[in-house]
Amino acid sequence: MKRLGKQTVYFENPPFIYETASTVGEKEGKGPLSEYFDVVLNDDYYGEDSWEKAESRLQKENAMLALKKAGLLPSDINYILAGDLLNQCIGTHYALRDIKIPFFGLYGACSTMAEGLSLAGMIIDGGFAEYVMTLTSSHFCSSEKQFRFPLEYGGQRAPSAQWTVTGTGCAIVGDKSKSKKDSVFITHVTTGVIEDKGITDAANMGAAMAPAVFGTLKAHFEDTNFTPDDYDLILTGDLGEIGSNILVDCMKKAGYNIERNHNDCGKMIFDKTQDAHAGGSGCGCIGSVFCGFIMDRFRHGEFKNILLIGTGALMNTAIVQQGESIPAIAHAVRLSRGE
Amino acid sequence: MKRLGKQTVYFENPPFIYETASTVGEKEGKGPLSEYFDVVLNDDYYGEDSWEKAESRLQKENAMLALKKAGLLPSDINYILAGDLLNQCIGTHYALRDIKIPFFGLYGACSTMAEGLSLAGMIIDGGFAEYVMTLTSSHFCSSEKQFRFPLEYGGQRAPSAQWTVTGTGCAIVGDKSKSKKDSVFITHVTTGVIEDKGITDAANMGAAMAPAVFGTLKAHFEDTNFTPDDYDLILTGDLGEIGSNILVDCMKKAGYNIERNHNDCGKMIFDKTQDAHAGGSGCGCIGSVFCGFIMDRFRHGEFKNILLIGTGALMNTAIVQQGESIPAIAHAVRLSRGE
Repeated sequence: MKRLGKQTVYFENPPFIYETASTVGEKEGKGPLSEYFDVVLNDDYYGEDSWEKAESRLQKENAMLALKKAGLLPSDINYILAGDLLNQCIGTHYALRDIKIPFFGLYGACSTMAEGLSLAGMIIDGGFAEYVMTLTSSHFCSSEKQFRFPLEYGGQRAPSAQWTVTGTGCAIVGDKSKSKKDSVFITHVTTGVIEDKGITDAANMGAAMAPAVFGTLKAHFEDTNFTPDDYDLILTGDLGEIGSNILVDCMKKAGYNIERNHNDCGKMIFDKTQDAHAGGSGCGCIGSVFCGFIMDRFRHGEFKNILLIGTGALMNTAIVQQGESIPAIAHAVRLSRGE
Repeated sequence: MKRLGKQTVYFENPPFIYETASTVGEKEGKGPLSEYFDVVLNDDYYGEDSWEKAESRLQKENAMLALKKAGLLPSDINYILAGDLLNQCIGTHYALRDIKIPFFGLYGACSTMAEGLSLAGMIIDGGFAEYVMTLTSSHFCSSEKQFRFPLEYGGQRAPSAQWTVTGTGCAIVGDKSKSKKDSVFITHVTTGVIEDKGITDAANMGAAMAPAVFGTLKAHFEDTNFTPDDYDLILTGDLGEIGSNILVDCMKKAGYNIERNHNDCGKMIFDKTQDAHAGGSGCGCIGSVFCGFIMDRFRHGEFKNILLIGTGALMNTAIVQQGESIPAIAHAVRLSRGE
């Protein structure tokens, strides 16, 4: 059994990140990570007549771009694991109508990219696939419409609110036999349990998600005996400013200092002048930051070991309106560059 | 590589169905399969103050019942794979707040049970888990409210419409070392691609889903060299009357006669007097029929080989209102009783 402790598995033949692609919207393209994305839209409608269709097109074009960069065809990919934030994950489903790859649908909110990488690792190391694609997206306009207010209403946003990223990330995971010496391998996966500490404010999702990240991160260190110092970067996506501060504090109280090497995709994708309040969020935030910036920096030798932690808030509008608090989850994936 | 053809994998050490539990609502409890369900509710609110909370409680209590029947604790289960039809899968998420099992969220609409069994098989045969739980639900009232009309409106239903089942199924999949001679093993998994043949009528989902089942079933036969005659039952969930007829016709044209041994969970769970029109539907339909009736009949020696095919319609209300057609998916799982 390739298991360590309660929540972690390791890979005997670690799969690796074969290729990635990222596409973001106009606002994200004006942020600090602009140069690392493959495509920056200049129209967030992306030539479509609705935001939902635009989000779907984001996933489709980005998946095709990842295949093109990899020199692969859809028929080379054994499985695609994908999902998004829209009701019934239509961003994904309408994107994949035209790409005939066996498909497992995921719902993990903003943890989807990490969930996809986790399952891709198991499917490949388990001997069931050569290539697995993971894909996710979010779109500011389709999310605001669905989760908050009509955009035309121009509602004022709370300081603790995060800004849903318009963006998408696609990663093609390959089996080890195709790797190079300096490929980026998935070595360990720590899978989260659902945590709900009673936060009822849907405009403060960082606070709702921080306890789930705390649980997964603590489990990762306990299960593997890795320490924070074993990582160049412990990257969450997306706690934003408030959730990140809560996480760092809670970890310190539990005896782990991650202040030096923790960062959050939601804090990285926008700068302070961009009016994104507590930072970015959405499946497409960690998706595009991982598939764009992080993989570029890996390739340039800046990182050796990263713990990528996808974090998802698992409520919907109906249940929050019924007074319920917000459950959350976090999945961790250890990425290690070969030497 | 444990692969056959384009869409199928097989297991070297086939995982098996360790235990199942099923719970259904009042109407389902008056149907032909009543005696096979573990629990029949006499109040579809299940003591809660909303339908969403009732659906969530269905999953929670049913998961606990499966554990109890199996003599296992939550801590014995390495992963739970679960999802439902509600926006952002809140039926699942609020159920699992209190059951601390590492969780991968799925969205496959009514294919969720088959998707869960597929991934559970790969995770266990891949060497990553001893026990994986799959769980899903649907609730007539929460579904009507979300997808169609307020219940109080009393909208007339189209003859082609299906009736969303109030019910839940939970299966605990175990690794082979714990099996008995006559356990029910998962031997092959054929994973679907998304198909969309242009059906735009959300009250005719059987027709929208039939092409996806056709594709997966044809791939299964081509990949494995099994024939329809190798199965005691080819069980879809849930095409209903209309989708089933389309499937049988299309298969006949492709050279496969499944008339003798095809049935559909949506056709089985209600009888003609129950005003369910084209039949039952919802994640909980195949969930409860498989975990209740099918597993009971396996245990009584009635079946030796079954192909279980979960079928999901992957639209949401917003995109259908924008005029889009309905994509669908189908996942097949071969179940074989040892001798």
